[in-house]
Amino acid sequence: MTTYSRTARSAGALLADEPAELIARSVLARSGRIAELEHFHRWMADEKRRSHMDVRAVPLDSLSGWRVDGQTGNIGHDSGKFFSIEGLDVVVPGGPVTWWQQPIINQPEVGILGILVARFGGVLHCLMQAKIEPGNCNGLQLSPTVQATRSNYTRVHQGSAVPYLEYFRDTEAHRVLADVRQSEQGSWFHRKRNRNMVVEVSEEVELLEGFCWLTLGQLHQLLAVDDLVNMDARTVLSCMPFAGRDLLPLFEDVRTEFTAALIRSYSVESAARHSMAEVLSWITEVRSQQLCQVELIPLREVSDWRHEDGRIRHDSGLFFNVIGVSVTAAGREVRAWSQPMIEPCDEGVVAFLAKRINGVLHLLAQAKTEPGYVDVIELAPTVQCSVSNYDALPPQARPAFLDTVLEAEDSQIRFDAVHSEEGGRFFHARNRYLVVEVAEDFEPEHPGYRWLTLAQLVDLLRHSNYINVQARSLIACLHGLSG
Amino acid sequence: MTTYSRTARSAGALLADEPAELIARSVLARSGRIAELEHFHRWMADEKRRSHMDVRAVPLDSLSGWRVDGQTGNIGHDSGKFFSIEGLDVVVPGGPVTWWQQPIINQPEVGILGILVARFGGVLHCLMQAKIEPGNCNGLQLSPTVQATRSNYTRVHQGSAVPYLEYFRDTEAHRVLADVRQSEQGSWFHRKRNRNMVVEVSEEVELLEGFCWLTLGQLHQLLAVDDLVNMDARTVLSCMPFAGRDLLPLFEDVRTEFTAALIRSYSVESAARHSMAEVLSWITEVRSQQLCQVELIPLREVSDWRHEDGRIRHDSGLFFNVIGVSVTAAGREVRAWSQPMIEPCDEGVVAFLAKRINGVLHLLAQAKTEPGYVDVIELAPTVQCSVSNYDALPPQARPAFLDTVLEAEDSQIRFDAVHSEEGGRFFHARNRYLVVEVAEDFEPEHPGYRWLTLAQLVDLLRHSNYINVQARSLIACLHGLSG
Repeated sequence: MTTYSRTARSAGALLADEPAELIARSVLARSGRIAELEHFHRWMADEKRRSHMDVRAVPLDSLSGWRVDGQTGNIGHDSGKFFSIEGLDVVVPGGPVTWWQQPIINQPEVGILGILVARFGGVLHCLMQAKIEPGNCNGLQLSPTVQATRSNYTRVHQGSAVPYLEYFRDTEAHRVLADVRQSEQGSWFHRKRNRNMVVEVSEEVELLEGFCWLTLGQLHQLLAVDDLVNMDARTVLSCMPFAGRDLLPLFEDVRTEFTAALIRSYSVESAARHSMAEVLSWITEVRSQQLCQVELIPLREVSDWRHEDGRIRHDSGLFFNVIGVSVTAAGREVRAWSQPMIEPCDEGVVAFLAKRINGVLHLLAQAKTEPGYVDVIELAPTVQCSVSNYDALPPQARPAFLDTVLEAEDSQIRFDAVHSEEGGRFFHARNRYLVVEVAEDFEPEHPGYRWLTLAQLVDLLRHSNYINVQARSLIACLHGLSG
Repeated sequence: MTTYSRTARSAGALLADEPAELIARSVLARSGRIAELEHFHRWMADEKRRSHMDVRAVPLDSLSGWRVDGQTGNIGHDSGKFFSIEGLDVVVPGGPVTWWQQPIINQPEVGILGILVARFGGVLHCLMQAKIEPGNCNGLQLSPTVQATRSNYTRVHQGSAVPYLEYFRDTEAHRVLADVRQSEQGSWFHRKRNRNMVVEVSEEVELLEGFCWLTLGQLHQLLAVDDLVNMDARTVLSCMPFAGRDLLPLFEDVRTEFTAALIRSYSVESAARHSMAEVLSWITEVRSQQLCQVELIPLREVSDWRHEDGRIRHDSGLFFNVIGVSVTAAGREVRAWSQPMIEPCDEGVVAFLAKRINGVLHLLAQAKTEPGYVDVIELAPTVQCSVSNYDALPPQARPAFLDTVLEAEDSQIRFDAVHSEEGGRFFHARNRYLVVEVAEDFEPEHPGYRWLTLAQLVDLLRHSNYINVQARSLIACLHGLSG
């Protein structure tokens, strides 16, 4: 965002109008439209009482509104819209596993995940929604203002209009702080991308039931709570252009060396281990060398997976299942539908190793191949896996640095919370998100990993295909450690 | 490059070590290892005498080393490497032409286009090669240090080793100024990308025959000469990180208001019409709305194209032909081979409209859909077409702003030269490249076009899939107008 902020400044704009500083001020605000988080939790509990969702397992071949194609075995919606479950053939020469097949969600539409922001008393507030999803282990979670597939907002399911959608469709009239198509789980989605948007309005906005205004400081505190801020909210929060010139002076009350190093990490003026030219060259090198050949195949032909008891599972019992659910939602709106979902077999571990280099926090990013990515690799956290899956894989497949994370001492752990993945497609998919600080002399030599600053990650987040969804979740959590 | 240069500065590096300034100094150098351009032209004439290439038309179905697949009609190399000619089915809903089929080059390998740079007397010099290609209308042109397909440098054709390749394979030992995979002609190539690299060496480099060291100032003067600096050299030159803080003070002898506005356009401190957040949001919007469905099909099934007299041509006689050539090269090395090539039916027009906005030059960039792009659209020059093709297309297909360019008065024309496209794949493919300045009150309202500064274009050039090859050629030419 450097170009942006410097341009704005020389154009004579107020300093407070630079996105990074505007965001930093909101990060520091522990109180806003909602004075105390206690009030928020009470509101959320009220919302929970008012909403109810009944989710039942249904065999995949008897999902109402969906049909199994006679030839391919693919599972698709009667309208031909939404998404389908198909098969994927994957070849990764040189990888720990060089060939496999699997079911995958094919959802070619680009949906919108948008947070509307507005200033109250000069402080940015985010309009958040209490939203229930069939895959959420706890029903209601906090989601962005708008979370809509294209089928959703073009009204394929004949539901009601998507509230606040107009602000994200007519951006000319507002100020766009972020607008970028980002990937989602590359192991479960084939080339899916959603548009992550942050739009600032200056006009008055009506507060509808089920929505609330929170400062970034408040949202960041909520990120420490398990299963509360949903995946869509986390990915949009990670795209906030929270990097610029030195922000440390704004943070008067820096409590620890770690926090100071974190805030310095957002400054484009801080010395980074690698220049951006070197980081981009490394990504180009990996993408030029690594091959990942991917082909959609009929779901029926996927080997090592079986249809059994109305669901699809791997012969080993590991990885994930494709299940069918029938959903009845009650609350402000009564709706009933059925759909397939992906149900992972185990909780995952997602962790960044972090260390201070000359007082600036760096994260160890991994160039990770996943079959669903558009461009070979994306930058992932240092560790991202389901530990139990490796029981079925050769020992050399065990992820690097996994033991460093699992054996970390409490004194090294800077962040530790369990968050849910998207509850509209994934059933009870949860990951333990960690940030683990290592000593400055921890210097792994591994061509697939690089130490990056947050300013560099935020710079890459302006573009598609660079930072994967798990890394974005952790970046949102890291933003939360600064305030 | 802002992040890069500021990081470098705060890390205590010399000011002269910031890429943008290093480049600006080389742009200003009209003399270097080769004292006068006259000497260069004499050297080039010598090289021309020493090299010879005989190129003859051969029917596509009797190309030695190539075969036409019995089932698909696709034309491929016996080794399965290099490239193939296949068919493409294209659907562009809402476009002027909503459906068509065409032959296309499928070349999935990522090759290397690299310029080696070194400082002599503190001034950056580029190591350039006099290289003959079968498609060049004039035989020899000036090319990058390395111009190699992957098949080339892994020695599929058993030729000799590629000189200087090692500097681009082992980048750790050198300083990488640019390293990004860029697209090539999206109408003729299916998803092709080459790695554009600029690598600086500090050690001594042997000067081989057929190579010479030129300053950027010298190369820029040569860009004004027709058919001299080849496409591969132009695209790599465009990726030079030639933008940063205010460079105007370095240019003591600014001759015109246009030049001053151009140099200001490279500064990230200059006010741009649109912020980078707005530019990126516009690109995201277009990519989310515009659909372009593309499918490789058997060449045999492509409709409206016919095999005739050993070549493939469109029924209208327009667009391009696929031809076969047999090549014998004599010079330092004697080699003979055959290959298919694309031969456009007409010369094209490629032009940027430029205007000063508050003293800062802006270019009118077009969000253009071409079937070969990886990500729906790339930014193209304001006008990019072969005029005669529109005889066969509906009137609404006639490109916007074409008449503004064709009817421009001499006093508006800032750049005008004919350049050749890649002579290894395209036979006598030439475009007239123009920069036309319009008055500040020229304000077209067109959702597919935006005014961008050069600092913004150079920022986007660090990443894949943003700036198409024709725009990159013109950006190299614009760099050349600054010195």
